[in-house]
Amino acid sequence: MKAKVHVRLKSGVLDPQGKAVRHALLGLGFAGIESVRQGKLIEIELSETCPERAYASVEEMCRRLLANTVIEDYAIALED
Amino acid sequence: MKAKVHVRLKSGVLDPQGKAVRHALLGLGFAGIESVRQGKLIEIELSETCPERAYASVEEMCRRLLANTVIEDYAIALED
Repeated sequence: MKAKVHVRLKSGVLDPQGKAVRHALLGLGFAGIESVRQGKLIEIELSETCPERAYASVEEMCRRLLANTVIEDYAIALED
Repeated sequence: MKAKVHVRLKSGVLDPQGKAVRHALLGLGFAGIESVRQGKLIEIELSETCPERAYASVEEMCRRLLANTVIEDYAIALED
């Protein structure tokens, strides 16, 4: 079973990396870019086959390591 | 219009960051983790409203700045 975890900064949190990417895109001549936010995509291959147990395990991984829940949100999607 | 861009390393490319995350998760006591790959999630808010033009523009951003196409793949998803 495969889990895809999206970790993104909470909406009020400043994102200097996203701002730098937006600035670079504008410098390359791209117009109409209102904002850029950069987050992480973490793909985990698990030997667990039960979706409920896999989800619970990945959620614990997010809380303990993958996301800083003070400033980041996470979303988990499971695939077979 | 909002674009979500996933940038991930191509499958044959070594991912030391993913390897470090896997190692840290094993150290925290999580079992059954076969592999971890870490990529980027870039969310772009565009003023463009035509999906075709937005897609073409974001694809050019990926090729020119967001992804290193020698070692990375990208996937674009548009939302209203």
